[in-house]
Amino acid sequence: MKLTIDRNELLKALLNSSKVARGTDQVLNNLKLDLFEDKLEVTGSNGELTIKTIVPRYKNDRALFRDVLPGSILLNAKMFTEVIRRMDDNEVSISIEDNSIAKIRNTKSMFNLNVTRAEEYRELDFSEEGVHIALNKNDFVDAINQTSFACSIKARAILQCVNIENDEEKITFVATDGSRLAKKVVPYQSEERFIVNINQKNINEVVHTLSEDDETIDMFISDRKVLFKMINCVIISTITTGEYPNTRNIIPHNFDFRLEVNSDEFLKALDRIVLLSIDRENIVKLTMTEDEVVLSSKSQEIGDAKEVLQLFKYNGGRLEISFNVNYVSQAIKALKCQDILLSFLGEMKPFTVTNKNDENCVQLITPVRTY
Amino acid sequence: MKLTIDRNELLKALLNSSKVARGTDQVLNNLKLDLFEDKLEVTGSNGELTIKTIVPRYKNDRALFRDVLPGSILLNAKMFTEVIRRMDDNEVSISIEDNSIAKIRNTKSMFNLNVTRAEEYRELDFSEEGVHIALNKNDFVDAINQTSFACSIKARAILQCVNIENDEEKITFVATDGSRLAKKVVPYQSEERFIVNINQKNINEVVHTLSEDDETIDMFISDRKVLFKMINCVIISTITTGEYPNTRNIIPHNFDFRLEVNSDEFLKALDRIVLLSIDRENIVKLTMTEDEVVLSSKSQEIGDAKEVLQLFKYNGGRLEISFNVNYVSQAIKALKCQDILLSFLGEMKPFTVTNKNDENCVQLITPVRTY
Repeated sequence: MKLTIDRNELLKALLNSSKVARGTDQVLNNLKLDLFEDKLEVTGSNGELTIKTIVPRYKNDRALFRDVLPGSILLNAKMFTEVIRRMDDNEVSISIEDNSIAKIRNTKSMFNLNVTRAEEYRELDFSEEGVHIALNKNDFVDAINQTSFACSIKARAILQCVNIENDEEKITFVATDGSRLAKKVVPYQSEERFIVNINQKNINEVVHTLSEDDETIDMFISDRKVLFKMINCVIISTITTGEYPNTRNIIPHNFDFRLEVNSDEFLKALDRIVLLSIDRENIVKLTMTEDEVVLSSKSQEIGDAKEVLQLFKYNGGRLEISFNVNYVSQAIKALKCQDILLSFLGEMKPFTVTNKNDENCVQLITPVRTY
Repeated sequence: MKLTIDRNELLKALLNSSKVARGTDQVLNNLKLDLFEDKLEVTGSNGELTIKTIVPRYKNDRALFRDVLPGSILLNAKMFTEVIRRMDDNEVSISIEDNSIAKIRNTKSMFNLNVTRAEEYRELDFSEEGVHIALNKNDFVDAINQTSFACSIKARAILQCVNIENDEEKITFVATDGSRLAKKVVPYQSEERFIVNINQKNINEVVHTLSEDDETIDMFISDRKVLFKMINCVIISTITTGEYPNTRNIIPHNFDFRLEVNSDEFLKALDRIVLLSIDRENIVKLTMTEDEVVLSSKSQEIGDAKEVLQLFKYNGGRLEISFNVNYVSQAIKALKCQDILLSFLGEMKPFTVTNKNDENCVQLITPVRTY
């Protein structure tokens, strides 16, 4: 195997695939390079998530590599990526000798890295099987960013997942850690049905891997894996088995108390008021009447704080409710809009945080008792 | 005590002084505020280093604060700084009630922070006593940046210091960790003599604290402390007692081997070659003849690497020498110039790294044995 390749294009591929190249199984510390006449494939995997990045031979009629002798090899991901990162010529030549040494050369540098035979890597299944969904990139990114933060980090594996399922008309993304829930609906017509749970780390990595060039993301959802297909990149993720909690009828309706706030002002007030919420970690109190909306917090040792909102509209009687600032801040930030609606049923009932003008995303939060 | 003050100016002062406001003595977690008719002083200390930042009442005819009732108080440094950082009005009002609560207000926010009486703070000696030196700011900054990195981090206290002493014509700054030494000479005429050792952390903090407005730094060096005086900031540092190693005649002359390199090229080559110096941590080999200069490194497990310099000039016979890359890289970076001269006496003798065109700064490095 040998080639001479554009250093920047190689480096981009190495960085993309080496993000996941590690594991208790030593062989996963390698990247797998598969060189064909028309493309170079760089594959990294942690066993749960596998990223294959493709460097095509030609891009806009420019050759990205030349002097090709096809072949496959394993190279230590960290070391190989660092060597290529630090080289400063435009091109670099790589040739594998005796299946044992990779000679990496440019005008100044000569690196000889020990390699491992490609056959020692894990077998990977890149078959495009199962239900096929082709989602607009922005819809996909929004759906994940508006839900995955609400996954649990520590609880049982199923709560660390984003639950994705569809019916004839829509795809529904749900995440919950037991204290809050995020739900996003994306209109999408399909005759095939699927339900799948994907660990938030894996699905977030897919979002990070999307490039500017991608307009669509193709998903192939089977019983054994989900395959995500993008321009010059394929990702396969394991799926998490188990029954996801039934969240279908969990979001209340017909609220008695409705508060409209400005996202920026409310977030900044929360950011200040949380400073004094030391005794009960991150818990602050919201007191609402039609004349005044006040956030407050108190610490026996440090002092107390009060924030008076300037921009608000409130319908309902006087209501006091206490909540975890992080939950509400993250929910508001995920909505990415200025006009936020908080809807309440009572002091101890879960409340919703939504975009006043869009019902496709709902953030549900359980309050805590006010002292 | 009360005042209404420009939030940005207050925040700058709080950030500047709170950098050091911490210690095992609980009272050091506070900032001391001393408000006078014409200035606000904000003092923080960790016992070793004390920073007093001054907010003058007027700056370019603009009042930075108003509605003044003078007084002194202690406020938790972290909490007070964070509250002021997160407030978003231009002005903030502070009033102390009953020596027990600081009421901090703007149009939206009301914070009540518990305070401590000023009398409970440590007594601090801001007297301008001892030898007075007025150094150009850039000379001072260069001298510290070109030496302090060579201090030891772990060895006995005296080696963690920059040693500063003068004679009639110059001030000499020296730092050494036993394996390398950095020495900088700044021409400066003085009739008074001093020798002082200042911990590198303290002296580096002084460098960081200098502002764009400062052109000169005034130092008052006594047996008990060093006081640094700048525009709107005074710092006092403890000094480290003990005999500094005699380094006067340690730097060799009359070298047999002289290598001129380009700083950028040499640093980049070192940065690459160090990747393979895993078996002997950070040790690489430099092989010089008049025809070729090569850097190399080798790891049994990973492989080997070789860098051929393009830009160099070498006088002397063939020489092989091995050294710690960090020492040489840091020395070259400290010199901040393109034309670097490395001067050798032999394979196992300390060598110097200097600016080819300036002898005021010398970096001395002990090599290691070549295998």
